[in-house]
Amino acid sequence: MTLEATLRGIVGSAHVMRGGNLPAYEIDWRKRYRGQARVVVRPATTQETAEVVRACALSGVAIVPQGGNTGLVGASVPDTSGTQVLLHLGRLNGIREIDAANLTMTVEAGCLLQAVQEAAGSKGLMFPLSMASEGSCTIGGNLATNAGGTQVVRYGNARELCLGLEVVTAEGEIWHGLSGLRKDNTGYDLRDLFIGSEGTLGVITAATLKLHPRPAALTTALACLDWLDAAVEFLALAQARLGAALTGFEVMNRFSLDLVRRHFPQLAQPLPGAPWTVLLEQSDSQGQAQAAQRFESLLEAALDKGLIADAAVATSLQQSKAMWHLREAIPLAQSLEGLNIKHDISVPISRIPAFVRVTDDALERALPGVRLVDFGHLGDGNLHYNVQAPLGVAAERFLEQHEERVNAIVYDTVVAHGGSISAEHGIGALKRDELARRKSPVAMKMMRAIKLALDPHGLMNPGRVL
Amino acid sequence: MTLEATLRGIVGSAHVMRGGNLPAYEIDWRKRYRGQARVVVRPATTQETAEVVRACALSGVAIVPQGGNTGLVGASVPDTSGTQVLLHLGRLNGIREIDAANLTMTVEAGCLLQAVQEAAGSKGLMFPLSMASEGSCTIGGNLATNAGGTQVVRYGNARELCLGLEVVTAEGEIWHGLSGLRKDNTGYDLRDLFIGSEGTLGVITAATLKLHPRPAALTTALACLDWLDAAVEFLALAQARLGAALTGFEVMNRFSLDLVRRHFPQLAQPLPGAPWTVLLEQSDSQGQAQAAQRFESLLEAALDKGLIADAAVATSLQQSKAMWHLREAIPLAQSLEGLNIKHDISVPISRIPAFVRVTDDALERALPGVRLVDFGHLGDGNLHYNVQAPLGVAAERFLEQHEERVNAIVYDTVVAHGGSISAEHGIGALKRDELARRKSPVAMKMMRAIKLALDPHGLMNPGRVL
Repeated sequence: MTLEATLRGIVGSAHVMRGGNLPAYEIDWRKRYRGQARVVVRPATTQETAEVVRACALSGVAIVPQGGNTGLVGASVPDTSGTQVLLHLGRLNGIREIDAANLTMTVEAGCLLQAVQEAAGSKGLMFPLSMASEGSCTIGGNLATNAGGTQVVRYGNARELCLGLEVVTAEGEIWHGLSGLRKDNTGYDLRDLFIGSEGTLGVITAATLKLHPRPAALTTALACLDWLDAAVEFLALAQARLGAALTGFEVMNRFSLDLVRRHFPQLAQPLPGAPWTVLLEQSDSQGQAQAAQRFESLLEAALDKGLIADAAVATSLQQSKAMWHLREAIPLAQSLEGLNIKHDISVPISRIPAFVRVTDDALERALPGVRLVDFGHLGDGNLHYNVQAPLGVAAERFLEQHEERVNAIVYDTVVAHGGSISAEHGIGALKRDELARRKSPVAMKMMRAIKLALDPHGLMNPGRVL
Repeated sequence: MTLEATLRGIVGSAHVMRGGNLPAYEIDWRKRYRGQARVVVRPATTQETAEVVRACALSGVAIVPQGGNTGLVGASVPDTSGTQVLLHLGRLNGIREIDAANLTMTVEAGCLLQAVQEAAGSKGLMFPLSMASEGSCTIGGNLATNAGGTQVVRYGNARELCLGLEVVTAEGEIWHGLSGLRKDNTGYDLRDLFIGSEGTLGVITAATLKLHPRPAALTTALACLDWLDAAVEFLALAQARLGAALTGFEVMNRFSLDLVRRHFPQLAQPLPGAPWTVLLEQSDSQGQAQAAQRFESLLEAALDKGLIADAAVATSLQQSKAMWHLREAIPLAQSLEGLNIKHDISVPISRIPAFVRVTDDALERALPGVRLVDFGHLGDGNLHYNVQAPLGVAAERFLEQHEERVNAIVYDTVVAHGGSISAEHGIGALKRDELARRKSPVAMKMMRAIKLALDPHGLMNPGRVL
């Protein structure tokens, strides 16, 4: 029996599709990777998933797991060989259980992030992982890539929001590691090994997630600053005054908001252009009045200390959403402006200002007129430090000629500042060679040993990460 | 050259001691494990540690790493063979760096937990890991065992408080994984693999830790309840009302506090004996007045709903400490009462009441008159469910006759309620066989494969965990 026949026997003929003309599965979100699957297989249960993996393992055929296919580093599409099985988890999308008294829920990998948020909301609770792609990314993909987003400063990455996993191993066995336990010291931390491993060690099929009480009030503000150093001091002040109530702290440079103004003139910008603008969000378990008062007092203190030059507090949910819209419009405005070179870097928060100064200078010296779109999650030390061609220079040509050099400059300064070349997007195919060049050889050796231990035949998402 | 001579060459003769009569190193804290080391070696630097490990690896000699030797599962003392090298990390005790603007500090493994807390405090910040042994346990041991303690409900275990590690691998190489980054998705999560691995994969020599702003106010209260179910509802109410300001939620049964009353009559008990007493703590970033008001309003709501029968709020730091003293005196009072069978279990918080009901009943049926000391970290679903001989029965004899049966009853109900047989103490030698019996075979297989991958000759703390 051919592998295809076996797979049809497991999941049904309707859910095995011949590869080659399935762009939704075979082309990545940024359209940088166009592959061809041998077949696309869509199991409906964990059991079926395990049987699919076992069948592929027996045939020595490689598997590429895929969730919402919204990743940014080319980890979720097959290569061009036409030999890889694309394992799509979309039909594994049940909410298995919500345990409100334990503040947990158990969901299947193919659930959309937004569906997870809504299911938590239906019980008056909150799943705080949040990002622009939440309407199409899946929780399995979020965990496989340890996704970040806009609430990390308070709630952590996907890793911190997961208590247990169900995984199909490379051998096609099921590890029943679902757990609603906040404390469990029984051996090695397999959960965190699978989280962030980008499908290269096994397939996450379900997860038990941490929920949080829904805050009684959410308030948002914008503040403009002359110096990035002041933003770091402002962050420390906000953390000291608001504690865990500080749930968002984003930063945007002038050019980022200029691009939004140019491409989305309908979006109101309540503050005048400034070298830097901070968006901050407070969640309060008591209520609107107290939250507003705390916010006002924080902003006054920051004005008094000369950290911020001006501020605007949202007085309605609508205004609050409009502020977040500004922040979220930056990547779109940037696309409309033309292709660009994206980075997703982190450095210790204390070193962000120096990093930006040094990197801006180095790029300006190397490529005069280059335009820098600096924005990101300052509260996590994570910047999307993106590089756009000088005005009047064709973007395609700029990328072709300079991408490698730009990356070398940015990553050299990242490493010099104790940072990471991939803060929240992962490695995938895109940064695999860069990782091998820049990660410590001792770490690379351990990672390869673990890969060999758990996937000895190298069939799980080969060519990614390692 | 003998191994001893090589080791003396690395760390100096004064820091290589022949084993056999070194109780501080060779007997565990609970005095259940008495071993004999070939030698005790005390390196002063990471480099020396690496050289020691390399020398032992070349000679095929096993290593037992030790921090403060306060572990409760026999993971930090050598076996009785006289062949194992005890690697004591106590001289590796530097505070390498405090980066206040990044809310991180980098410390060496042998630092006492209390020294870490104090160093953070000296910068107006806080390292929240806290437990009774903090004056003698080390941060390296805390991380190697993923220690818990009393603040986990808000700040997490040791795992959640660590951003990066420096590790000497089983081969004696140094992995420079120290990092002050809150986001770093560059490959497999080696950090969390070493955390909680109890020295069986390598030796943690330093760590970068997360710090938090110091709260402006700390308030503590006791509340008494008739039912454990009400404690779970009270917890949910406290979480909804206080959010992240809830930093402690402990529970104690009547017999626990009776023992404290008997053995420490000088400790005031502000509330009358009740079936259950909860100790809760609130941290506030604003100030005492607001914290007190929030607490009063929470306790009133709980009284109105009939969840609690009575409550007492500490009105001074001294009263607050006295309340914590009651809680912390339980293990001591229990020792004074006589030997007992300890458990460190967790189940989903929602299942705690059912677990206690079922287990109490089963034990009472099996061993009439048995006395149960139930107390622990309800906010984490973690109970120290301890079993004391019936009144008038000699403790030694009771343990000899019944320990195995008691453990079987307790662990059977733990597993039936989706729980863990080791919430925060780890596996060590004590629970190694229990783990092999109760953990999923798929998980055990992966753990063994990882052990083989990173410590192929089995020289790192053999006989522990696996």
